[in-house]
Amino acid sequence: MRKNTTKSALLVIDMEDAFINKNSPLCNPMAEAIIPACVRAVNSARAKSIPVFFVKRVYRNNGSDVELTRYKRWDDGGRPLGPSSIGEGSAQAPEGLRPIRGDYTIIKPRFSAFFQTELDLILRRLQVRTVILCGTATPNCIRTTAYDAFSLDYNVLILQDCCSSITQEIQVANLADMARVGAQLMTSAQFEDYQEAAAEKNIQAILEKVEASAIAPEPFSDSQSDVRSIDNW
Amino acid sequence: MRKNTTKSALLVIDMEDAFINKNSPLCNPMAEAIIPACVRAVNSARAKSIPVFFVKRVYRNNGSDVELTRYKRWDDGGRPLGPSSIGEGSAQAPEGLRPIRGDYTIIKPRFSAFFQTELDLILRRLQVRTVILCGTATPNCIRTTAYDAFSLDYNVLILQDCCSSITQEIQVANLADMARVGAQLMTSAQFEDYQEAAAEKNIQAILEKVEASAIAPEPFSDSQSDVRSIDNW
Repeated sequence: MRKNTTKSALLVIDMEDAFINKNSPLCNPMAEAIIPACVRAVNSARAKSIPVFFVKRVYRNNGSDVELTRYKRWDDGGRPLGPSSIGEGSAQAPEGLRPIRGDYTIIKPRFSAFFQTELDLILRRLQVRTVILCGTATPNCIRTTAYDAFSLDYNVLILQDCCSSITQEIQVANLADMARVGAQLMTSAQFEDYQEAAAEKNIQAILEKVEASAIAPEPFSDSQSDVRSIDNW
Repeated sequence: MRKNTTKSALLVIDMEDAFINKNSPLCNPMAEAIIPACVRAVNSARAKSIPVFFVKRVYRNNGSDVELTRYKRWDDGGRPLGPSSIGEGSAQAPEGLRPIRGDYTIIKPRFSAFFQTELDLILRRLQVRTVILCGTATPNCIRTTAYDAFSLDYNVLILQDCCSSITQEIQVANLADMARVGAQLMTSAQFEDYQEAAAEKNIQAILEKVEASAIAPEPFSDSQSDVRSIDNW
């Protein structure tokens, strides 16, 4: 496989039938329209050897892992997103947005792709520094993933035509909020020319500055009595 | 101490001088205006024996724990929020928003009050089911805390006149987004009559329904060969 020179990973979030299909009780009505742009982004990523992560929700049948805030809608609606939606070649996602050999699948129990999942561990192992987000819905799963990514020191890039909200007003407001805290916005068309995140060099400069700092991280005393040795325990 | 019959806790987030004072490089210009409402909320909570958590940001002097997205502004601005802002009776917070005996202080390294802090452990020990949020700023620290709280199965109540954004438009949009995923909105005046969160009974009903469910959580086979015993490892 070609080397991923971008230090990036593409996260495709919750693009599964239960959130897209008009007949699903959990449907996000604007999600269907972004499928072509998401497919374009996935194809671009694969062509660049950027690892692709399909991050999806799967619920246990007895509801023990359904968010309390979503339980009633899930229960009333026939308990979608059951264990049968997992697995290689699953038809529970639109064509073009199903894993192929080399892709990853992350099952997440909550909004954020990072919340109590193995995603961060794998991204570190792959030396990923920038996460590129697409999927549904912008104010919830995209946004919580973006803030967790910031908190874990990732650079964040959002493919703005590859994510959706229930109204255009909500979409615009959420993208602006995320841009204000440092997210880079890009279209799926621009992503075809993507080589490296603009913020990558800024991050490296900060890490080098912290490393070179002569300032002690915490106040401390040099007196011998303050030094903990094994004997003091 | 009187028993906390509300199963709630009040979280006062980032109401410290470095985010409030007009001369601070990290100032949120709207934060000062909400001080009186926050003080009112803190006093109401103490009167009801609702535990009060002052959640605050403190940075190590060498910048090793400053968010990458905020590093430059922090560094250029004289590295505020150093270790000296911690501690009993610290004057780094407005009067009325400093811990007194019985309150908690949580130091958080990132936006969310839950992100890699001991907050969730303490709330569980105190049998808290509802978190009541106030502080600054709504789109970042309040919102990430709200989503993490939902993810950890807490009920979320936001004191809307006790949190602020850089514009009224951002404030309204963010409160609406959070209400849409289940946050209850309330004013500091209404909070004076607060006895129990409206969603509390709904949560209990869901927990009982999950407990009573005859549906197996996961598909499995009853055949003996599928049963793992220590001998099979």
